[in-house]
Amino acid sequence: MVTIAIDAMGGDFGPRVTAPSVISSLEKFPDLHILLYGHRAKLDPYLHQAAANSRLEIIHTDEQVSSGEKTSAALRKKQSSMRLALDAVRSEKAQAMVSAGNTGALVAISRYVLKTLLGIDRPALIARLPNVRGYSYMLDLGANVECDSENLHQFALMGSAYARVLGAGKSPKVGLLNIGSEEVKGSEEIRLANASLKTSEVINYVGYVEGDDLYKGVVDVIVTGGFAGNIALKTTEGFVLYVSHVIEVAFSKNIFTRLIGFLAIPILNGVRKAFEPDLKNSGVLLGVQGVVVKSHGKSEQAAFCQAIENAYTLSKNDLMDQISDQLDQEII
Amino acid sequence: MVTIAIDAMGGDFGPRVTAPSVISSLEKFPDLHILLYGHRAKLDPYLHQAAANSRLEIIHTDEQVSSGEKTSAALRKKQSSMRLALDAVRSEKAQAMVSAGNTGALVAISRYVLKTLLGIDRPALIARLPNVRGYSYMLDLGANVECDSENLHQFALMGSAYARVLGAGKSPKVGLLNIGSEEVKGSEEIRLANASLKTSEVINYVGYVEGDDLYKGVVDVIVTGGFAGNIALKTTEGFVLYVSHVIEVAFSKNIFTRLIGFLAIPILNGVRKAFEPDLKNSGVLLGVQGVVVKSHGKSEQAAFCQAIENAYTLSKNDLMDQISDQLDQEII
Repeated sequence: MVTIAIDAMGGDFGPRVTAPSVISSLEKFPDLHILLYGHRAKLDPYLHQAAANSRLEIIHTDEQVSSGEKTSAALRKKQSSMRLALDAVRSEKAQAMVSAGNTGALVAISRYVLKTLLGIDRPALIARLPNVRGYSYMLDLGANVECDSENLHQFALMGSAYARVLGAGKSPKVGLLNIGSEEVKGSEEIRLANASLKTSEVINYVGYVEGDDLYKGVVDVIVTGGFAGNIALKTTEGFVLYVSHVIEVAFSKNIFTRLIGFLAIPILNGVRKAFEPDLKNSGVLLGVQGVVVKSHGKSEQAAFCQAIENAYTLSKNDLMDQISDQLDQEII
Repeated sequence: MVTIAIDAMGGDFGPRVTAPSVISSLEKFPDLHILLYGHRAKLDPYLHQAAANSRLEIIHTDEQVSSGEKTSAALRKKQSSMRLALDAVRSEKAQAMVSAGNTGALVAISRYVLKTLLGIDRPALIARLPNVRGYSYMLDLGANVECDSENLHQFALMGSAYARVLGAGKSPKVGLLNIGSEEVKGSEEIRLANASLKTSEVINYVGYVEGDDLYKGVVDVIVTGGFAGNIALKTTEGFVLYVSHVIEVAFSKNIFTRLIGFLAIPILNGVRKAFEPDLKNSGVLLGVQGVVVKSHGKSEQAAFCQAIENAYTLSKNDLMDQISDQLDQEII
């Protein structure tokens, strides 16, 4: 049995997306239990008879964290759906928590409620990226604006454990994002992190990677500060839209291209599916004492269901134990 | 008449790419003169009878800056093809310089030989990015690893002038790259730059932009530090290859998709052309006293020709005067 606490009010669409996602996840996983935190009256129209499901518990609260809210204000809301869902993880009522809400608030409240793991100074957001060979995992994607070399080293440890849990083999290859592959490149923090990662006996560190390596599959884990990671991820998101636009324009030039475009619709839909779900998908906040899954604010039902599934998979595979093991090994 | 000094030995392919590019550029622009710096014996096999062109002067040198070379070592080579080409700009023998060589060395030698413009502390690399509405210009793309708020403000001034020279209208919209659009987001340098850009009467500053805005065409100029800029650009470059791979796989699934793929070849080639040339293309080093065009190290002939054309266009349009005007206005 896996119990997941869900912030029903987060994200751009709130209950309209979260409630139906909960229903379909409960159908998909027979051993899944859900604690759903949110405004009962706003949830009910989307829950219908599912509200009677014995594996679903709805916990009403009036408070919620809004998307533009300052972190300091969000931290004061002790009854927000986000906070209550995290409280459930801390009190071990739930093994994992899912929210599509305000990222800054989620990071700060998670850190406050769950505390960081022993050996971790700052949590980091990680997500999966597709590449020509399969998948890689990148962190930090924006939990921290500035990161020092120790933070980066810790991210490498956590990312490595995370990739292992998700099937990247026993010794995932880890690269450090930089703007050149030569030893002398990059900021001081990055060069220091490079030096300390080289000494690690736990991390399979392969050295620097550059932006154009991200989608080549040269490493399983890409370590970077939250600013560059966020820029890299969002730049790709934006570029996907641009590519879609260019493809659309190219195929609608004249009757001939329109006809070919019509025939190619299923193929082009396949192309779109190859990157969109991942890029629009959830991140996981590593480094706090609990599984916290951050779904994209713009998540529609498919993406939010995927976030719940991630929380479910990570709980089943004991992500927390894996990360703690990795940290213990490095300390020894 | 425009005279351009060219580093014939830079880039992954050296004379094999630079020499034929010079020949075709001389054919294209009847008022173009070229000073070609490099190893005569290595150039001759690619120049043939063009060596006798009265608009081409070949200046032999044994020395060259290699791609992995440390900046300090490159700076000591006073007879390198890169250095001599920059010397030609300083002594006003040439209006512009083009190189596909080592970026770090090019930035450092340009700064040393040409000096920065009055009011500019650090030069920055700028390049054009395609977007759904046309083009935008992003800087810095990697000339500086760390940038403070004043550097960013100066980049905004130079980028604005550059966009104007290249036809982005009288008052190009300028955005500052950040990881959130709220005022409180980002590093201290970014928040300080945001505050100072708001007070500018010269820059049409619109505020923060995020990674996913880069290809939407919301602004004409994107200002960022060299680390994030380089990551954003190279991430996109890498993603283009990934998209090409995904498209290829999707169209080669079975006989039916192959047939549609065959019919769609010209359309898909058009799609590729919509972003590749720009991303593989040249950057310009703004902020030094002269036009310095950096072509991609992997440039083939088409890309290197484009770099020469950029140098030609920028010289014809008095880029330097435009930037100086912009700087003067801001100081007043």
